[in-house]
Amino acid sequence: MTIEITVALEYSFEQSTDIMLQIEAAAIPEQYLERAHIDVGNVEHFARTAGHDMIGDRLWLRTSGLLRVDYTARVRVERILTDIGTLPMLRPANLPGEAVQYLLDSTYCPATEFQYFVQAEFGHLEGGARVAAMRDWIAEKFTYVAGSSGPQTTALDSFVMRRGVCRDYTHVLVSLCRASTIPARFVSVYAPGVEPQDFHAVAEVFLGGEWHLVDATGMAKEGEMAKVGVGRDAADVSFLTAYGPCAMLSQSVDVRTIGSDAR
Amino acid sequence: MTIEITVALEYSFEQSTDIMLQIEAAAIPEQYLERAHIDVGNVEHFARTAGHDMIGDRLWLRTSGLLRVDYTARVRVERILTDIGTLPMLRPANLPGEAVQYLLDSTYCPATEFQYFVQAEFGHLEGGARVAAMRDWIAEKFTYVAGSSGPQTTALDSFVMRRGVCRDYTHVLVSLCRASTIPARFVSVYAPGVEPQDFHAVAEVFLGGEWHLVDATGMAKEGEMAKVGVGRDAADVSFLTAYGPCAMLSQSVDVRTIGSDAR
Amino acid sequence: MTIEITVALEYSFEQSTDIMLQIEAAAIPEQYLERAHIDVGNVEHFARTAGHDMIGDRLWLRTSGLLRVDYTARVRVERILTDIGTLPMLRPANLPGEAVQYLLDSTYCPATEFQYFVQAEFGHLEGGARVAAMRDWIAEKFTYVAGSSGPQTTALDSFVMRRGVCRDYTHVLVSLCRASTIPARFVSVYAPGVEPQDFHAVAEVFLGGEWHLVDATGMAKEGEMAKVGVGRDAADVSFLTAYGPCAMLSQSVDVRTIGSDAR
Amino acid sequence: MTIEITVALEYSFEQSTDIMLQIEAAAIPEQYLERAHIDVGNVEHFARTAGHDMIGDRLWLRTSGLLRVDYTARVRVERILTDIGTLPMLRPANLPGEAVQYLLDSTYCPATEFQYFVQAEFGHLEGGARVAAMRDWIAEKFTYVAGSSGPQTTALDSFVMRRGVCRDYTHVLVSLCRASTIPARFVSVYAPGVEPQDFHAVAEVFLGGEWHLVDATGMAKEGEMAKVGVGRDAADVSFLTAYGPCAMLSQSVDVRTIGSDAR
Repeated sequence: MTIEITVALEYSFEQSTDIMLQIEAAAIPEQYLERAHIDVGNVEHFARTAGHDMIGDRLWLRTSGLLRVDYTARVRVERILTDIGTLPMLRPANLPGEAVQYLLDSTYCPATEFQYFVQAEFGHLEGGARVAAMRDWIAEKFTYVAGSSGPQTTALDSFVMRRGVCRDYTHVLVSLCRASTIPARFVSVYAPGVEPQDFHAVAEVFLGGEWHLVDATGMAKEGEMAKVGVGRDAADVSFLTAYGPCAMLSQSVDVRTIGSDAR
Repeated sequence: MTIEITVALEYSFEQSTDIMLQIEAAAIPEQYLERAHIDVGNVEHFARTAGHDMIGDRLWLRTSGLLRVDYTARVRVERILTDIGTLPMLRPANLPGEAVQYLLDSTYCPATEFQYFVQAEFGHLEGGARVAAMRDWIAEKFTYVAGSSGPQTTALDSFVMRRGVCRDYTHVLVSLCRASTIPARFVSVYAPGVEPQDFHAVAEVFLGGEWHLVDATGMAKEGEMAKVGVGRDAADVSFLTAYGPCAMLSQSVDVRTIGSDAR
Repeated sequence: MTIEITVALEYSFEQSTDIMLQIEAAAIPEQYLERAHIDVGNVEHFARTAGHDMIGDRLWLRTSGLLRVDYTARVRVERILTDIGTLPMLRPANLPGEAVQYLLDSTYCPATEFQYFVQAEFGHLEGGARVAAMRDWIAEKFTYVAGSSGPQTTALDSFVMRRGVCRDYTHVLVSLCRASTIPARFVSVYAPGVEPQDFHAVAEVFLGGEWHLVDATGMAKEGEMAKVGVGRDAADVSFLTAYGPCAMLSQSVDVRTIGSDAR
Repeated sequence: MTIEITVALEYSFEQSTDIMLQIEAAAIPEQYLERAHIDVGNVEHFARTAGHDMIGDRLWLRTSGLLRVDYTARVRVERILTDIGTLPMLRPANLPGEAVQYLLDSTYCPATEFQYFVQAEFGHLEGGARVAAMRDWIAEKFTYVAGSSGPQTTALDSFVMRRGVCRDYTHVLVSLCRASTIPARFVSVYAPGVEPQDFHAVAEVFLGGEWHLVDATGMAKEGEMAKVGVGRDAADVSFLTAYGPCAMLSQSVDVRTIGSDAR
């Protein structure tokens, strides 16, 4: 499976501003970057640092006025998928230390509040079977509505509203998993088939000693996504974070599967 | 400077529950554990994992009914202090990747919302001078009132209320620093002189390429604290996190400086 | 049904502070005050104003130092109860103007967010039948746990946590009703049988052109409650509101049914 | 002063939905409706009820598909203005009962949290002098930025962000007044000079026994506004409230002063 990604962003900044971008497909074993190119124009500073958990890169820029970012990449995804429904969970006591942060509450995932709900509704299931049931429950109960949430919307809001976009589906699933003592993180990805085309977000759960992608929206296939970065929730993998006032002028994301000859 | 720590906790759990404790002074170069002992009684599981950023340990237990935890330690603190007011900040583009998480919003520190405030009030200062001014501003404007905040209180609430306890002072200072593109994290510590005696919390800011402790409450001296753990905010270094219903029965913390012969 | 109420409150105030009390059983047709006495000691000011929707009174005091309030009353309740399950709702267009405020969002009842949930789960029911089903759903799913919520807890939190005390049950039921375009308000009451004994809170819904009490906790009988006041949520009928720092020293509430000879 | 108002709204509704509109200039003594016309097209129901505090009207409609609302009015405003800076406040004990609701916390105005701030910064001022100082403080510290807030933004957020639109300025001023035991309500108005042209919102404070308009944004003159309705905050006077999913298609508001011959 090979996917082709084309992204164009235009933002404007009132004053000289520090900006963090995280929009490049990560160079990690499960996905091979056949080619990738990013152009940010003339900026004052430019630097590259490792993303959260060392997955993907964050770019730091400093600029004022108009910022135009063009990114294109071709990524061959070779992810081995497992049926998560059969995977065991590790007891918290057996988790590696670096997974523990993904059990804790974060900005958009106040997981502690969901402990009784998961116990009441999914307490008879364990590990991957529980994750699969929670994913299916969200998919059944929720409706995907573009524009129905905003940057302050948390998993609490989404759980009540039963509407949202990919970030909201993911925040709810992540919260339900953490409330079940199953580590879960937020993954920003590129995926074909997302309607309308945009940056996409899915969950990743730690089962059987490894991380596994889960898309509660059902819009994308876990084997066809290119990961950009991971974090505790959307706050960690925002595609653009500005340390000052900014205005979005335009933004386009195009992701497509390319022909079988390219596989 | 040597400090002696004595902690006793009693909690009760309705059912068999996974519990994470983070109450031990960390074994790190700047503080030497002359002795330390923890007793958690008979529990089903017991495991030790590394804390956030590999500082300190988290203990995982599983138990039901009464949990009694006794912890005692003697810690020799040999921290080299610097006048933070003179320290330069690194441009975000020059930060090490692992410090970037400490620029981002977290549960109790919605730092983005503070960008205009810091620019308006402290925009004429840079780096350590700005951190010192923000620390002094908090110390001047805020009143320490035991019981004036709760587990849902965020830096927004505290900023408006101008009252709080150590966690609240720290959340506000951390938020102001992050809004200034200065990485800041939350540190749980033991410190003599805290009134009433309790777990204490302070900020740590990344200036001149290193982390520096800052206590906005002014209750404790940065050179006399024993660090327990670090995190993005209080959610990461809670001394006890339970994955199920629990009730606190009693809790005592005693921290004292021991005689000059021990220094 | 006659009930006897005995309340004692002790609070302390750092400085001269305006205080609003709302703890007296209301003098309204459905309940007759056989006797009532309130003693607030020596205070600077004392005045009585009508409560929200002209139900009950609010007392304004101004004092500093210790405030001791003693209230006793004997109330004969003669409320005519109806089976709400059979009552029709009025279309919003037919509501009296003064009921409309009880359709709108309020501090603890962000009802708008619940619109999709009520439509999905209770959309097949109308009016009183829907209210009864929602009350039963809360009674089945929620667990009453003293101390499980705090003053910042909203209906969103409670809906997710499925735990709470009377105020939380009421906030959730009120929110679900408003999201169904059924006006619903918060009523503070005295009721025998509440465990632990305390101020109690229930919902009141507007069906068939009249207000009807509904206790989602099931702890008290709608025919045996003495109303104190009504409002949009708990913020409107707090038994004590202080415009300055205060500390609660003690508080006791005793409500009991008195013998058949008194009926 | 005579103003001419022209409003056009287009919304679409997936299903038959109850809708409340509050967009008409109120018929009250201080403003005379020379003419007014509203057209909502063919709808299933249509009814008119009194607004909050009996000021203005709320219209209830029920419709599905496209809703197009056209409203035009000519309003002669004859409001007697007073310099609020010299007005005394009433002690809470002397307030009329119906003003007390405007001292309490509401959805967007968590006034209690601001008590210490107003005491610290404005405690040396009383009544109208304090209101004027708080209005000027907001005007000095805040920047009006269209699009900088959203429907979930509260006075806490705005106070920290120091940016917002008219609703945010008003929520902050209302909160500061309530925290000072000065009743304050939210007023939706039409006003010439608002840039960009839109529905406008200002505060109204209860001083000297009467309500007085205060525009913290400084964009409009208190003597040139036509009031639409009042409430505890924006939640009470939303120009359109829908009890079901809806999408805004277009919206235009035009308010202008008409020639001296019309005065």
